[in-house]
Amino acid sequence: MSTQTNDRRTIDPAAIEMLGVAEAAQISTAWDRYKAQQPQCKFGLTGVCCRICIQGPCRIIPNKPGQDKGICGADIFTIVARNIVRYMAGGASAHSDHGREIAHTLLSVAEGHAPDYKITDPVKLVRVAKRIGIETEGRDMKEVAKDVAIKALMDFGKYDSNPCTWLETTIDDERKAKFKHTTIAPTAIDRAVVQLLHQTHVGTDADPVNIIFGGLRAALADYTGMHLATDLTDVLFGTPKPVITEANLGVLDPEKVNIAVHGHNPLLSQMIVFAARELEEEAKAVGAKGINLVGICCTGNEVLMREGVPTATNFGSQELAIMTGVLDTMIMDVQCIAPAVKDVCNCFHTELISTSHIAKVPGSHHIAFNEATAMEDARKIIRYSIETYKKRKPELVRIPKYKKQVVGGFSFETLMELFAKVNPDSPISVLTDAILAGEIKGVCGFAGCNNQKTVHDNAHITIAKELAKKDVFMVTTGCAAGAFAKAGLLSSEGVEAYAGPGLKKFIKRLEEKCGLNAGLPLIFHMGSCVDNSRIADLWTAMAQNLNITVPQLPFVASAPEAMSEKAISIGSWVISMGIPCHVGVMPPLDGSELVYGIATEIARDVFGGYFMFETDPEKAAQKLIDRLEKRAWKLRVHRETAEKYNSELAKIYEG
Amino acid sequence: MSTQTNDRRTIDPAAIEMLGVAEAAQISTAWDRYKAQQPQCKFGLTGVCCRICIQGPCRIIPNKPGQDKGICGADIFTIVARNIVRYMAGGASAHSDHGREIAHTLLSVAEGHAPDYKITDPVKLVRVAKRIGIETEGRDMKEVAKDVAIKALMDFGKYDSNPCTWLETTIDDERKAKFKHTTIAPTAIDRAVVQLLHQTHVGTDADPVNIIFGGLRAALADYTGMHLATDLTDVLFGTPKPVITEANLGVLDPEKVNIAVHGHNPLLSQMIVFAARELEEEAKAVGAKGINLVGICCTGNEVLMREGVPTATNFGSQELAIMTGVLDTMIMDVQCIAPAVKDVCNCFHTELISTSHIAKVPGSHHIAFNEATAMEDARKIIRYSIETYKKRKPELVRIPKYKKQVVGGFSFETLMELFAKVNPDSPISVLTDAILAGEIKGVCGFAGCNNQKTVHDNAHITIAKELAKKDVFMVTTGCAAGAFAKAGLLSSEGVEAYAGPGLKKFIKRLEEKCGLNAGLPLIFHMGSCVDNSRIADLWTAMAQNLNITVPQLPFVASAPEAMSEKAISIGSWVISMGIPCHVGVMPPLDGSELVYGIATEIARDVFGGYFMFETDPEKAAQKLIDRLEKRAWKLRVHRETAEKYNSELAKIYEG
Repeated sequence: MSTQTNDRRTIDPAAIEMLGVAEAAQISTAWDRYKAQQPQCKFGLTGVCCRICIQGPCRIIPNKPGQDKGICGADIFTIVARNIVRYMAGGASAHSDHGREIAHTLLSVAEGHAPDYKITDPVKLVRVAKRIGIETEGRDMKEVAKDVAIKALMDFGKYDSNPCTWLETTIDDERKAKFKHTTIAPTAIDRAVVQLLHQTHVGTDADPVNIIFGGLRAALADYTGMHLATDLTDVLFGTPKPVITEANLGVLDPEKVNIAVHGHNPLLSQMIVFAARELEEEAKAVGAKGINLVGICCTGNEVLMREGVPTATNFGSQELAIMTGVLDTMIMDVQCIAPAVKDVCNCFHTELISTSHIAKVPGSHHIAFNEATAMEDARKIIRYSIETYKKRKPELVRIPKYKKQVVGGFSFETLMELFAKVNPDSPISVLTDAILAGEIKGVCGFAGCNNQKTVHDNAHITIAKELAKKDVFMVTTGCAAGAFAKAGLLSSEGVEAYAGPGLKKFIKRLEEKCGLNAGLPLIFHMGSCVDNSRIADLWTAMAQNLNITVPQLPFVASAPEAMSEKAISIGSWVISMGIPCHVGVMPPLDGSELVYGIATEIARDVFGGYFMFETDPEKAAQKLIDRLEKRAWKLRVHRETAEKYNSELAKIYEG
Repeated sequence: MSTQTNDRRTIDPAAIEMLGVAEAAQISTAWDRYKAQQPQCKFGLTGVCCRICIQGPCRIIPNKPGQDKGICGADIFTIVARNIVRYMAGGASAHSDHGREIAHTLLSVAEGHAPDYKITDPVKLVRVAKRIGIETEGRDMKEVAKDVAIKALMDFGKYDSNPCTWLETTIDDERKAKFKHTTIAPTAIDRAVVQLLHQTHVGTDADPVNIIFGGLRAALADYTGMHLATDLTDVLFGTPKPVITEANLGVLDPEKVNIAVHGHNPLLSQMIVFAARELEEEAKAVGAKGINLVGICCTGNEVLMREGVPTATNFGSQELAIMTGVLDTMIMDVQCIAPAVKDVCNCFHTELISTSHIAKVPGSHHIAFNEATAMEDARKIIRYSIETYKKRKPELVRIPKYKKQVVGGFSFETLMELFAKVNPDSPISVLTDAILAGEIKGVCGFAGCNNQKTVHDNAHITIAKELAKKDVFMVTTGCAAGAFAKAGLLSSEGVEAYAGPGLKKFIKRLEEKCGLNAGLPLIFHMGSCVDNSRIADLWTAMAQNLNITVPQLPFVASAPEAMSEKAISIGSWVISMGIPCHVGVMPPLDGSELVYGIATEIARDVFGGYFMFETDPEKAAQKLIDRLEKRAWKLRVHRETAEKYNSELAKIYEG
């Protein structure tokens, strides 16, 4: 296959180059396997295949007598609804189980069982503690941390009927009332998931609306777990501040020991950063010029945000990093590590190192990671990587030259600090005033993965460029951030190339005051996929500042290349929060018009947010812009009317 | 279709008759829909279709280049393992969420918020409390109940690293050590499920052995939830004692208001029993001769065990109960209520009443059930049923005459009381001595559902008859019990017809002492599917009595017609406990030889228990008998050798 074809598989120039290498070496990639799976099963694609009991599989054909329902009599809407909410259960589980690990580690730190970790950000600890009602005055930080950690762990397993603390203390009153009214506020994260599996067990719930409400409860549990993961990770490792780094395969260094951290949970990857710095000399002792740590997926985003570790690549192109021949080890923690990386490792000297007790890959090297021995484990991994470096095969080395500057590290707090430089009295007003003034149209949060059903990275970039042109302020997380990073949209290069006049003016005004050694980016990188909680904090703050509800706010979300259960779960809480959410890949729910209608129409009536499924990136961009324009227009009209009314009223009173 | 064909669809004579009615009326049944689904998708049937992310579905074809792995590179063993353990997650969730409701109600009783419930069995409460380390001396029963309920609720959501209380306090030391060694003891029920979903999220675990161990952790969480459900239900409603009742559609009474309770959770169905007794006169006031309550599935088993409510039918034939034209209402709680019942109700006057907030059926009448207003809700339901009775259409009435006597109510405690009448000093020795003496071959526990992949009830009955002939002592729960009940195997009729000489002698010896108004049954009904915990208590007691481990005990299990996720979960903890378990329907795991091998071979090496998949009931019976004979032979040889050795030793010392 020629490079000409490869540019129809990805728009990432480094990936195009490496796909050529893969072809030459006859190494199978996700692109090849996707092609081999075509045509994909239409029943599965549309969500109408039920395997919830082992009388099945039942495949539903609407209006075909006998086959229009499952063996148990389940209707097509029941089957589609059950299938889709079980994705939410999976996503909520993955995110929140990651959050649980963080909370456990914070507890261990507080109790003195995790000597290698510390409370890096006591300011954030105090802020979180105060928010959730824990006394901080005059107390030792470890005591506060212990109470916070326990309160977080209680959010997973408490048995009272109050909503989870991390949900209740991070959303506004209007949403609290909405979730209470619709009964979707989870009382415990794990319980919401387990109850949802129960609800979707054979012969339990057949009502698609009720099932979807159960799904949204799990989705809000997902939000809860994510938010506490973000908060407590900041406490342990520091709240991200602006960092300047780079992205794409060009960040690999042929003269250094190259180690990629891949996965999601920073408990290990952060230690790897420390250990790599510590053992730099050992790398030099074997002839390398040092240790070059790079990131893939969200554990990469975590160490990018806090430590400036460069991004090698994102989900879709993870195998290609190995084909450079210079990656010595790939260190995996959990989630989104394609097992295919092991097969690619087998063609090179690269070693795949698994570290989690719930994420192993046959044939890979396992170095168990434990919070109690974290630095020791991290050192073991670094030393193993140095040993592996010695086995590198120079004849197989091929590093694409592409890399782009990345200015990242924009936690919610850092964004506020940045805005404070323009308006110290009301930082968030910098953003909301710009919207009211029409300088920017609103905000779009980008998240999500890569998906072989799309051209790799293309939808991300296409939509972002369109939105930039139309003056939309953009924030991002996850593999969307990876796509933007590699394309230069997380640097001022992106602003110069694509920002519309209003957006450019807005960003430049901030840039003048920001005091960074680099220009501000076109899109603001807010972190890993669990850090979508930071985006939620942003919209909550904006709505509060404008004294409106979230569903009235000119704020949209987009997951142009959604792939994982986590993405479905995130999208579901995003719409529950009142945000219109574009998804660029059709999830398996169009088998039922009713369920499709709930997601795209009824959700709007109930929650204000709703899904927009659109696989064409240009059309998707237009839809997002339309949404923002409509909400911004309403907001301005509402404001003007209110102001006019108030001034009329004032005149009357004056008179 | 003629009745001649129908007797190849079920062996239940009442069901055969009603299938004829269905055909005449052109009402679709599960049998018709099963036929319409043929041929079923082979990928789904063998577990090789992956829909864990939305790049898929990926359908794996072994050895076909490109299609031998999923898009992410997941191997066939990873996919099959992930799919099968997610069934365990679903099963564990359903059972334990039911257990959670019971625990919450017990807490409400203790705190005075559930006035219609009470501590019916303080003796069991004290026994449970003592077992789990709660002080009982001189304390008010409500205080004890509160502590017990909280400890139960903690088993769902506690965050320490100790195994769940209900697991740890009900198994023997050898199994405790085994589960610790293999790291599969859950520390919290909900966490085990959530962690398993995380583990099987895209790009997390690819190691099939590790995935299956994660699945077994969830399966032991299932056991934990089931055991606490049984314990606390006994506390609330009484530990079952022998009852004499009847089973099959002939229990419906054309002259009474007929109400079927259907589902699993007795919190409501038990109240329905009380309300039905209370409102008998109101039924008479509208011309009925009273109220006739019948049970379907496990909520039926619950009220059969404690109140002698007759069984109408089991899972596979639930729709047929409505076709009698005399069922006025079907009251559903949760699990295994085929949505098809609503379609059948539409052809008759019967009303389907849903009661749970997580189990609704479009078009059905919803009467919300709440523990705080339980009797009021139950009365509402009874009165609604009486109203519905008035709409009965006499021309549609057709009740098959078939019904059989059932002698049930054999909780573990009741079995022990029965044995105590033969051997007051060591009741359990009655059973173990009979095995050592070769009078009976061992014990088989039957559980599980109906599945359209088999001839309805046939595998249950065929295997039980074979085992009876070979002198196997049998206990049962769930829809297996339903099948046996309808076939007369839960009465002395079964003993006369099928028991081999040893078994007959054994049962008759018990019968002489039991003081019941009926003969003892061929198979002992131990309860609903959560009550499989009672069967586990039986094998644990037997192993302790014989001073051997559970995997050495001549005890087997069989789920001849397994259907639900719960069945897969139960089977998985059964084998983990060391019990060989027959399953008469092939679950979707034979797509991977490795996973199949783990379930059938490697499990034996690690846990002593393992699966035997055999769809031919005769062959299955033979395999079960072989297992029992081998274990019993080993046990006897071991005993004899030990005795001989001890007597030699004694001689030496004497000398």
